[in-house]
Amino acid sequence: MAKCKFCDKENYIKLKSPNMYLCKEYFVEYFENRVKKSIEKYKMLNKDEKILVAVSGGKDGHAAAWVLKKLGYNIELFHINLGIKDFSEISLETVKKLAEKLEVPLHVVNLKDITGKTMEDVRGKKCSICGTTKRYLMNKFGYENGFDVIVTGHNLDDEVSFILNNILNWNIRYLAKHEPVLPAHDKFLKKVKIFFEIEEELILKYAEAEGIPFTTAKCRFAEKAITLKHRAYFNELEKERPNIKYQFLSGYMKNRHLFKVEDENFQFRECEVCGMTSAGRICSFCRVWKLYKKKK
Amino acid sequence: MAKCKFCDKENYIKLKSPNMYLCKEYFVEYFENRVKKSIEKYKMLNKDEKILVAVSGGKDGHAAAWVLKKLGYNIELFHINLGIKDFSEISLETVKKLAEKLEVPLHVVNLKDITGKTMEDVRGKKCSICGTTKRYLMNKFGYENGFDVIVTGHNLDDEVSFILNNILNWNIRYLAKHEPVLPAHDKFLKKVKIFFEIEEELILKYAEAEGIPFTTAKCRFAEKAITLKHRAYFNELEKERPNIKYQFLSGYMKNRHLFKVEDENFQFRECEVCGMTSAGRICSFCRVWKLYKKKK
Ligand SMILES: [Zn+2]
Ligand SMILES: [Zn+2]
Ligand SMILES: [Zn+2]
Ligand SMILES: [Zn+2]
Repeated sequence: MAKCKFCDKENYIKLKSPNMYLCKEYFVEYFENRVKKSIEKYKMLNKDEKILVAVSGGKDGHAAAWVLKKLGYNIELFHINLGIKDFSEISLETVKKLAEKLEVPLHVVNLKDITGKTMEDVRGKKCSICGTTKRYLMNKFGYENGFDVIVTGHNLDDEVSFILNNILNWNIRYLAKHEPVLPAHDKFLKKVKIFFEIEEELILKYAEAEGIPFTTAKCRFAEKAITLKHRAYFNELEKERPNIKYQFLSGYMKNRHLFKVEDENFQFRECEVCGMTSAGRICSFCRVWKLYKKKK
Repeated sequence: MAKCKFCDKENYIKLKSPNMYLCKEYFVEYFENRVKKSIEKYKMLNKDEKILVAVSGGKDGHAAAWVLKKLGYNIELFHINLGIKDFSEISLETVKKLAEKLEVPLHVVNLKDITGKTMEDVRGKKCSICGTTKRYLMNKFGYENGFDVIVTGHNLDDEVSFILNNILNWNIRYLAKHEPVLPAHDKFLKKVKIFFEIEEELILKYAEAEGIPFTTAKCRFAEKAITLKHRAYFNELEKERPNIKYQFLSGYMKNRHLFKVEDENFQFRECEVCGMTSAGRICSFCRVWKLYKKKK
């Protein structure tokens, strides 16, 4: 077995770009340095900000919380109990383990307490509804509890497959919007993706190296999204063109201004039901969960 | 077996979009109508133009010549003998058969007569050199022999995989340039891709239905281009999203203005060696074949 580039230990991982073998210890250092560099490069976070990290039980959010804690940021955890049989119980258990290990506060919001329903009850496109629901609830909780910023675990693989999908469909409006830092706006908190430039595979290896608790349980409602195909295709392309994901993302960041089409008439307002910042009269969360009916 | 949508015959092909079975006769009619519509939509060709069709021996150029002749256009064929062992002989044989069947003039240019070398002799990236060589020679021949336009067999699959590749590499300059009709400029003749919107699979079925002579022989120098992967990936995506290739191309045509970055200082000039229109002091053909050396 090949040895670590920097010491005599056996390698834990083979990096592709730069091409080198690293032992577990040096890989952890390398990984944390890369995250640090991303944070500096995009001015993502400050040490005096109150940071809410969204954790689902999966590796990405958990690794995000872990590395931020190690880097000395002021974090607390946020989890939504979606009420999905088995899956939600396992997820909650895992999130609790993480909070214990990190010794940071964990806030859990039950979807049922707010909407009277769970993801089991909802009809229609569950994945899309779930996404809207999570974004809304984590923003609302962070806003009402004095947090400065929300951190999510979205990684390089997520970003490139979303961007490719928006290109294949020529969703120009969305194509301007992929960014590592989304500034605060009205009642929308600042949102940060600390793994914007980091490959999913590295996050998994980091989580394993550090013994971070996480679950690989999958929601049984998860749709076979076409973005899963794009992810697999990027991994296929990586075999011939190592680093193509990162280069594609860098090229995107340099060129995304091309897709900026201003809509001067557009203005955010307050949702008539919940009062949060909204694009329309009633925000998508209140629409999806039909909360306006209760008000009548 | 399913029957043709329009008659009692057995189906020859199942189209995906619109979803229907067609017998051989109705498919040929359908195919020729689609080409006719492309020609009208993009104002590609006129009946009084003198058209030079580039034929390599493969199905695409041959089907292009075939359908144009059937639609009543004034065509002649142009072929380059690249001097590649076996491959060039088979190609030339097939092209001659096509010319006989169509009863149209065939012009053959031997690379060796012009450069003193063949594609066997050349070093470096053969595929790229071959592409430059073909584009140059067909344009030069057309220009010197009074043709109005050059038609090539590039199809929908070629276009979408080129576009995707240019996006993945963020070649913005190239991204503005994919078009079905490239207008004439100085000594560059007008170039037309009549199959710009037509799937490769349909062209193959058309060539087979019509008994068009063509060879499937592959050049032994052909590089495993990454665009081949993109082609396969689009076919993979088509299974889940029928017509995605066509829709992607349509979206591209609507949005390609986003990539138009004007370079006001750029101007074409005449190649100092051959006198043809060129981007630089010496055109890429004369550079690749080192023709300037002979002049000294
Ligand atoms: Zn080491
Ligand atoms: Zn609302
Ligand atoms: Zn029929
Ligand atoms: Zn020249």
